[in-house]
Amino acid sequence: MDKIETYSFTVEPFHVDFTGHLFMGVLGNHLLNAAGRHSHNRGWGIDQLNENHYTWVLSRLSIELTEMPAQYEHVEVETWVESVMKLFTERNFMIRNADDGRIYGYARSIWAMIDTATRHPADLLALKDGDILNYLLTNEEKPCPIDKHGRIRVKASKATRTIPTFYSDVDINGHINSIKYIEHILDLFPREQFEQNRIRRFEIAYKAESYMDDTLSFFQSDDDANQLEIRKNVGNTDHLQGETVVQAKVVWTK
Amino acid sequence: MDKIETYSFTVEPFHVDFTGHLFMGVLGNHLLNAAGRHSHNRGWGIDQLNENHYTWVLSRLSIELTEMPAQYEHVEVETWVESVMKLFTERNFMIRNADDGRIYGYARSIWAMIDTATRHPADLLALKDGDILNYLLTNEEKPCPIDKHGRIRVKASKATRTIPTFYSDVDINGHINSIKYIEHILDLFPREQFEQNRIRRFEIAYKAESYMDDTLSFFQSDDDANQLEIRKNVGNTDHLQGETVVQAKVVWTK
Repeated sequence: MDKIETYSFTVEPFHVDFTGHLFMGVLGNHLLNAAGRHSHNRGWGIDQLNENHYTWVLSRLSIELTEMPAQYEHVEVETWVESVMKLFTERNFMIRNADDGRIYGYARSIWAMIDTATRHPADLLALKDGDILNYLLTNEEKPCPIDKHGRIRVKASKATRTIPTFYSDVDINGHINSIKYIEHILDLFPREQFEQNRIRRFEIAYKAESYMDDTLSFFQSDDDANQLEIRKNVGNTDHLQGETVVQAKVVWTK
Repeated sequence: MDKIETYSFTVEPFHVDFTGHLFMGVLGNHLLNAAGRHSHNRGWGIDQLNENHYTWVLSRLSIELTEMPAQYEHVEVETWVESVMKLFTERNFMIRNADDGRIYGYARSIWAMIDTATRHPADLLALKDGDILNYLLTNEEKPCPIDKHGRIRVKASKATRTIPTFYSDVDINGHINSIKYIEHILDLFPREQFEQNRIRRFEIAYKAESYMDDTLSFFQSDDDANQLEIRKNVGNTDHLQGETVVQAKVVWTK
C-alpha cells in the first residue's frame, strides 16, 4: 500500500466566497475527507476503529497557502503520516492543482486516538501490533515546508461576539462540527478584510467539545484580533472565563 | 445528447446531522450541482451563458423524500427538464441509492434566465434558436411523482429570530447563498423536532436577493410554525413588514 493517499475534488460554485475562492472551512472539510480516506484504506478508518471502540480526534490543524483554489478548479490533496508518538500522530497534506500541478499550499494536523467508552487516549503504537509505523514518511522523505503549529496567545477583556448553536452546527456525534468553528471564526471579520487580503495561514486547536444549545463566545486578543479563543457557556462575557473549546490564529497577506 | 444527466456523490461525514442523515441544505447543494452539470453539458451552463450576460436564477425548489441518505451511502441524482415556458423552465430530480437503486425521493425546481446587465428576464424560447426544447422530457416520459410547488401562506405577528449575515453566508455574486437560507431555516427548529421527526417535504421560494450585512428576520406563521418567511432589514420585528426574501414550508413525518 502506497504511503500517500491522493484525494481529488472540484471547487463547487456554492463552496466559494464572494471573491470566487474556496471557503477555508470547505478546504478543511476536504482535508479531513482525505485523511479519512487515507486511514480507511489502510485499516485505520473511524468506521473500522469504531468496532473496537476507538475513534480519531483532531487536535490541531494548520493550513498555509500561497493561493486559494478558485471556482471550478480541479484540486488534488495528498496526505500522509509524518510521525507517530504514543498518544499523537502528525498527518500532513499537500494541496495542488490537478491540471497544471501548481501547489496551492500545505497543511499539518495532529490527531489522537481515544477509547469511546472511557474517553481515554489510546496507545497508537500498541494498536494493531504497531501497524501504523508501516505508513510513516519523514519530512526528509516527503517534505511539508510549512511551520509546525504555533502557540496561540489570547488576552481578551471582552467577547467580540456570542452566538447560540443550532441544528446545522452539530455533527453525527452531537458535537459542534470541527468545520463549523472555522466558519464562525472567519465570520468575525468584516467584508473589507476579505476584499483587501487573503488568508496566508490558518491555525486551529481543538481543546474541548461543545454541543448543540451551548453558547459560544469569541474572544479576540486585545493586542491582536487575529488570535482568538472560543469559550462555551460563558455567563459574563466581560471576562475571559469559562471553558476554552477552540483557539485559532489567522495570518493575512495582501 | 441524453436528456438526463446523472450526478453521483457519497454522503460525507461532515455533511450529516446528529441523526447520521444528510443535511437538507447539502442535498440542495448536490441538486444544484447536478442542475449545473446538466446545463453545462448541453451548452446552457452559467459559465457559457455569462459570456452572453445571462444567468440562471433559481425561483422555487421542492424536495420530497421517503428517506434521507445516510452517512457513507452512494447517491445518484438524475435531473432533466420537464417543461419550458417563455420566462421559466421546470427542472426535476430523482434521488436514488447508487448501490441498490432504491429511491430516496424526488425534487422539482423552477428557474428563470436573467440578463445580468438589465436584470430583466430573458426569453428562454428565443435563446440559442430554441435549443432548450431539444431536452424536454414530459411527466409522461419521465415521471416526477411529487406535488408541484404549493402556496406558502404566512401570517405572523412577530419574528421568531433575527440574525445578521456574515462572510460565510455569501456566494460569488455577493448574494446570500441559496443553500445558507435552508440551513438558517432549519436552525429555527429545536433538537427534539429532528429527534422525533424527519422532513418529508421541504419547499422554498426565492423572492428577492439579500446581501452580506443585511439582517434577516424569520417570521413563522402564527397558525403553522412550519410555514415561514425571511424578510430583510426589518427595523421593527413586531410586524410582518420589510421585503420578503424567501418563503419556505417544512412538512414533517414520524
